[in-house]
Amino acid sequence: MARRPAFFISDRTGLTSESMGEALLEQFRDVQFKRATYPFVDTPEKARAMVQIIEKTAQQTALRPLVFSSIVDEEIRSIIKSSPGLHLSFFDAFLGQLEDELGIQARHTAGGRHGIGDTERYDARMEAVNFSLNHDDGISDKDLQKADVILIGVSRSGKTPTCLYLALQYGIRAANYPLTPDDLDNPGLPPMLRNHLNKLYGLTIQPDRLAEIRQERRPDSHYASLATCKREVAEAQAMFRRFNIPFTNTTQKSVEELAVSIMQACKLKRRF
Amino acid sequence: MARRPAFFISDRTGLTSESMGEALLEQFRDVQFKRATYPFVDTPEKARAMVQIIEKTAQQTALRPLVFSSIVDEEIRSIIKSSPGLHLSFFDAFLGQLEDELGIQARHTAGGRHGIGDTERYDARMEAVNFSLNHDDGISDKDLQKADVILIGVSRSGKTPTCLYLALQYGIRAANYPLTPDDLDNPGLPPMLRNHLNKLYGLTIQPDRLAEIRQERRPDSHYASLATCKREVAEAQAMFRRFNIPFTNTTQKSVEELAVSIMQACKLKRRF
Repeated sequence: MARRPAFFISDRTGLTSESMGEALLEQFRDVQFKRATYPFVDTPEKARAMVQIIEKTAQQTALRPLVFSSIVDEEIRSIIKSSPGLHLSFFDAFLGQLEDELGIQARHTAGGRHGIGDTERYDARMEAVNFSLNHDDGISDKDLQKADVILIGVSRSGKTPTCLYLALQYGIRAANYPLTPDDLDNPGLPPMLRNHLNKLYGLTIQPDRLAEIRQERRPDSHYASLATCKREVAEAQAMFRRFNIPFTNTTQKSVEELAVSIMQACKLKRRF
Repeated sequence: MARRPAFFISDRTGLTSESMGEALLEQFRDVQFKRATYPFVDTPEKARAMVQIIEKTAQQTALRPLVFSSIVDEEIRSIIKSSPGLHLSFFDAFLGQLEDELGIQARHTAGGRHGIGDTERYDARMEAVNFSLNHDDGISDKDLQKADVILIGVSRSGKTPTCLYLALQYGIRAANYPLTPDDLDNPGLPPMLRNHLNKLYGLTIQPDRLAEIRQERRPDSHYASLATCKREVAEAQAMFRRFNIPFTNTTQKSVEELAVSIMQACKLKRRF
């Protein structure tokens, strides 16, 4: 059966129309969709080219396309809406209501916010990215002092991508402390972490999934064996409980969800 | 004057309601907003606590709050909507239309998609993140062969955060090749890059902004001087033109915009 076409169209990056569209499509798991994202549709010419693409797709599939759009300019928006499709237009749905409520007209032009020229935002972001890159392996006490949060967990429990996401998305300086087998054998907290108990956040993971991830990295090693993974995870969780360190299981969570959970649990505020 | 309260409320991470809300608020630059994001509002109890927060804020500021929400469950949604505010509810606006169009009922439960348990997505993402981390300094020809795209530019032109964002957001393996003064003095393409011309994408930047960024890193150095920055940028741009390498100026662009521009220009497809 032909898949239902779903277009995500935007005058900017398309990230908003994509995340909005995906959240909606996710509500219909039995339907197969054929997705296509078109960013930077910011002139009437590009909009008319877009209409032709939508028309062609509608003819080929004989299914009415779903068109998720986030376009500020009214002329461009109305061109897009002349195409055959169910139009779910983000600004149509909300902008008028907001204008009425605020009692002023919206700008109706796509903005150039948050460029690298937006130096405050860029600097916070870069500082955080550099922080997490510099301390991915081997970390000093000075680094830990500067950190907003310190993620701890066994090797391959998801610390690195979460640190990077916290840096890129929120400008948070997230340090990454891997719990080694030595750390885990010891009943105390690793010495370096003792002065930073209030910044610690633990990541744990299902042992079978951990074994799978480690297997990719070092096939058939002691490190990747299910027994090792089970023991390390149990010891790490015991440590988290012993020292009242908040922690979460990463197995069923996306990096986005982990980052937001950590922001919330550690009461962190975005730096831009 | 009191700032207008703006709540971003979600049963999940809040990323959709935040990006939707920010795109709308950005249309009203003359209004001052006081933003607050509440993720994981996924039970009636949490929704009722949320209502109290909104009520209290409305009383304190004597301004009607704006409530941007992305909540699938109808009971939770209706509790939130009992609070005083202009309610811009994402699922209210679109879900009914989609159900009518598709002729089936939505699930109406918040989904657990994209967990680290979603192994395909997680693996693509981690492979890309590890790729960009391993090759941030010093890169081999084997790395360049595996790369989906190779970002080139002078030191501090924005390559690193863009590579990381491409990896995290799209699972794209983006290599990072810094153009050194030696590379720039030479009229040819750096030898390592010669076999990979079709994967190259250039980043450039305004010299004064570059000098500012470098100044942070190595104050009052030759490296950070405006003259050095002007010369390096001019030479890099000449190289991009000479070899027909697509390139963009990062000065006014966010990391998100850069990543999407590169995806589009290099015809890259997300890997998850």
